[in-house]
Amino acid sequence: MALGLNQDLPLLLSSVLAHAAATFGDVKVIGRYANEKIDTDYAKLEARARRLASALRHIGYGPDCFVGSLAWNTHRHLELFYAATGVGAALHTANPRLPPAQIAYTIDFTAYHTLFIDPDTLALAEQLAPQLQTVRRYVMMAPAGALPPTSLPALLSYEDLLADGDPSFAWPVLDERSACLLCFTSGTTGPPKGALYTHRGTVLNALSTGGGNAWGLSADDAIIAIPGFFHCNGWAVPFFGPMYGASLVLPGRRADSGFLHGLIVEHGITVAPGVPTIFLDLLRHCRDTGVGLGRLNRLFSGGTAPPLAMMEAYLRDYGVRTIHGWGMTETTSGATMSFAPRHLPPDAAVAAMRTQGKPVFGAAIRIVDEDGTTLPRDGVTPGHLQVRGHWSAAGYFRRPDVDAISQDGWLRTGDVARIDADNTLHLVDRSKDVIKSGGEWISSQALEDAAARHPAVREVAVIAIPHPRWQERPLLIAVLAEPVTEQALHIHLANIVPKWWLPDTMVFVEELPHGPTGKLDKQALRRWLADGLLGIAAAATAP
Amino acid sequence: MALGLNQDLPLLLSSVLAHAAATFGDVKVIGRYANEKIDTDYAKLEARARRLASALRHIGYGPDCFVGSLAWNTHRHLELFYAATGVGAALHTANPRLPPAQIAYTIDFTAYHTLFIDPDTLALAEQLAPQLQTVRRYVMMAPAGALPPTSLPALLSYEDLLADGDPSFAWPVLDERSACLLCFTSGTTGPPKGALYTHRGTVLNALSTGGGNAWGLSADDAIIAIPGFFHCNGWAVPFFGPMYGASLVLPGRRADSGFLHGLIVEHGITVAPGVPTIFLDLLRHCRDTGVGLGRLNRLFSGGTAPPLAMMEAYLRDYGVRTIHGWGMTETTSGATMSFAPRHLPPDAAVAAMRTQGKPVFGAAIRIVDEDGTTLPRDGVTPGHLQVRGHWSAAGYFRRPDVDAISQDGWLRTGDVARIDADNTLHLVDRSKDVIKSGGEWISSQALEDAAARHPAVREVAVIAIPHPRWQERPLLIAVLAEPVTEQALHIHLANIVPKWWLPDTMVFVEELPHGPTGKLDKQALRRWLADGLLGIAAAATAP
Repeated sequence: MALGLNQDLPLLLSSVLAHAAATFGDVKVIGRYANEKIDTDYAKLEARARRLASALRHIGYGPDCFVGSLAWNTHRHLELFYAATGVGAALHTANPRLPPAQIAYTIDFTAYHTLFIDPDTLALAEQLAPQLQTVRRYVMMAPAGALPPTSLPALLSYEDLLADGDPSFAWPVLDERSACLLCFTSGTTGPPKGALYTHRGTVLNALSTGGGNAWGLSADDAIIAIPGFFHCNGWAVPFFGPMYGASLVLPGRRADSGFLHGLIVEHGITVAPGVPTIFLDLLRHCRDTGVGLGRLNRLFSGGTAPPLAMMEAYLRDYGVRTIHGWGMTETTSGATMSFAPRHLPPDAAVAAMRTQGKPVFGAAIRIVDEDGTTLPRDGVTPGHLQVRGHWSAAGYFRRPDVDAISQDGWLRTGDVARIDADNTLHLVDRSKDVIKSGGEWISSQALEDAAARHPAVREVAVIAIPHPRWQERPLLIAVLAEPVTEQALHIHLANIVPKWWLPDTMVFVEELPHGPTGKLDKQALRRWLADGLLGIAAAATAP
Repeated sequence: MALGLNQDLPLLLSSVLAHAAATFGDVKVIGRYANEKIDTDYAKLEARARRLASALRHIGYGPDCFVGSLAWNTHRHLELFYAATGVGAALHTANPRLPPAQIAYTIDFTAYHTLFIDPDTLALAEQLAPQLQTVRRYVMMAPAGALPPTSLPALLSYEDLLADGDPSFAWPVLDERSACLLCFTSGTTGPPKGALYTHRGTVLNALSTGGGNAWGLSADDAIIAIPGFFHCNGWAVPFFGPMYGASLVLPGRRADSGFLHGLIVEHGITVAPGVPTIFLDLLRHCRDTGVGLGRLNRLFSGGTAPPLAMMEAYLRDYGVRTIHGWGMTETTSGATMSFAPRHLPPDAAVAAMRTQGKPVFGAAIRIVDEDGTTLPRDGVTPGHLQVRGHWSAAGYFRRPDVDAISQDGWLRTGDVARIDADNTLHLVDRSKDVIKSGGEWISSQALEDAAARHPAVREVAVIAIPHPRWQERPLLIAVLAEPVTEQALHIHLANIVPKWWLPDTMVFVEELPHGPTGKLDKQALRRWLADGLLGIAAAATAP
């Protein structure tokens, strides 16, 4: 193999922050938390991160080590991202939104000694501490000064630790394939599973998703970091912010629309990432108060497809475009992005924005059938979505028992999707929720969306009910806001979905079961059905 | 070392084109050459590149092989970039603008059997063929049909070769550190030296320089490929075009302003890269004919600092911004880019655009003194510029005798520069041309620029003349357009440069010596001085 003669430097997270300090040193990093206002910049943040890194190394952290955080979006948490990974340790960002038992599971499963917390997670940490198996040291990421009274066994001050650090510490050279960050899935089936990211994958993810057909970042931008840093690496914001010299505003744990709106206007935010709920609240806030959105020109919407009406309103009333991305814990942050070319008329642009978009360079997508045969990209055929790329998981952390990768190296996502000829992705359903009826697939999500549009329906779930002839048929289970007949709902649905999708049976209940993060728990619904709790037979009979 | 669990895929050029074919398959690639009009797209181009790759492999090309091209900017040349590198061979893009003896030197030095040419380089190839040591097969990149009568020993048809290729050929997996492309410096001192790029470096260069603070590319863009593909990889256009889904327009060998203007307007070009001469011609064309520039919104200017008046005129009259980049053969394409934030007023924006800009992520710069000690980034101190990064050379191709890298791994650029505190680069001079006077440095380029502003000066060069007290002093040598006294020039210069920079001696000559590519040949001038041909003593005497 004739090798080329380029310098062989590793792709490391520390080089991202070092680049920002050298090149965008005076670009602002703003923090606004309950009792603290921070106005700093990338140069100062990098200097603090290096001090902290040296302190971490001094107390024994380096390659092969794990360290944990249970914290919201603050500048100290950001410093910790770089300091811990900069010495070669991997940072487990525990998700404070999970139920305590699941948080404890992820910490114990990873097994480390030191957990970084902040004032807003202190109570939670105190609740967790008695059951944690390995953690024996807590570090409070708060301003210097007296530590709060606490039941925690050993609580150190972050600022004291940092003050002891060596300001002349230089970032060490590491293997770019080393582990840097660890996020767990929220675990709707079985215990949470970990995705252990590499420096290389994380850097490439930030570089590519920060580029032109996706976030399109530059030093002209200011980003408000709304998604939790513990969720898919905070959607890469901690990395492509400094990489592209965009200013960062960190709101701590708060996400209420009045507060966010104030930050957006005051700090000239140009890009706001978040889930549609956040943007709906913000829109309502603007309408109710008659205020504008300052320099904001794009939303980055993830989690679930943003409503068309919302995207239209932002575009029409505020000139704000929506980018919609798809990704999962197993893809670090985004893998596909809905880039709407500027020459499209508003209608077509909004329709394009609502798809899951196209893969950015470094990610690839395909759909396969049950046997793993690749299906056509015809925009019509649904199949099991698989992804491949530099920042896709090659397996789960310490779970060789979970078979996540196809024989030819693609990650199974658990989603069902269609793909257009131009590689545009359309999610159809979760694989485990799609209804297989007579060899065709019915999207439970599409049926739910259709039913939810009826004013009498408060909340709705569609699951499969076994059927002797069709294999499976859809069963609609709804909580009503007001009385409605099954027939009226039937007519409503028939106007929206194909006739053969129409549920043969509907059940109205008082309440639907939800999982720990508020998601509809369809597993529980299936148990209700099997246990006869829905008042119908657990399987349909042939008509 | 705890490794992370991301998929470990190599960064390969073939994956760039495969991404474009899948995701931007219908994005146009336009070719306009003397006798041919091409309207194709990335999907078709990739299919043809795969066929050609299989044909190349069939005739024995693969890793460890070199193949050559002597050709202009056409779709076939672009296909060859991907086909040759896709099978693991390295493509030497010989520069048809070099003098024939130097072209032959670079081909013989690399030593390969097959040279791809096009109709516009046939005559040159015929001239070179008798002296080439290793080439025994020529491939004509022209439309299918009869080959032209030629004196070349063995001339094959590119389209015949491609037609024999296997359309189901799949890109092989290669080591990302393998060599992919080879460009030679133009060799003003000694024979040309080769920079042998890796797949990894070339992909990272394209990804990063295509990003927001540099070219800022997206699928909304259309690029006209003006810089020769043989010059710094065509400034990365062959790679970040497909990577970011930008449309490409390939003008063959032509660069006259009427022709370029027609393509810019007809094909909705948004970005035009080139040297200032091209942009000055284009500006004159627009002024003379009163035509506009269509969708064009930015120039990417390289080679030398663009004149302020030119940038002002483009911005004021056409709303076209200038991005100015610095790079060299040894840095693949760009390393720094002048990103002018949008909130700057026009004056400040134009001033920012004219600097050599800031390093993009993946490149780093520093200045050092004669001993290699790093100098401050104070915007004032000049020093020897060194670069480091993923796409910087680690040495010269088969030239272990050339010591290009500092002990701590930085590439010596041969430039003298200043660096601002915010990492903005200002080139001062070539190291070998800067005049060391009494421990301070005088920029020969700045003196030449100042003198050239006098209407009586047609062309000017400044070189050092040895001085017993000051070590060196500037000597100004000019070709006059009209008579002028030395005193008048002195007064003119004194208004522009510091007093201690003023040349003690001026010499007026009929003609200045030029190198093969038209550049002023200061080496020859130094010989003239030493040989007494300038009519003055070869060294100054103490005042």
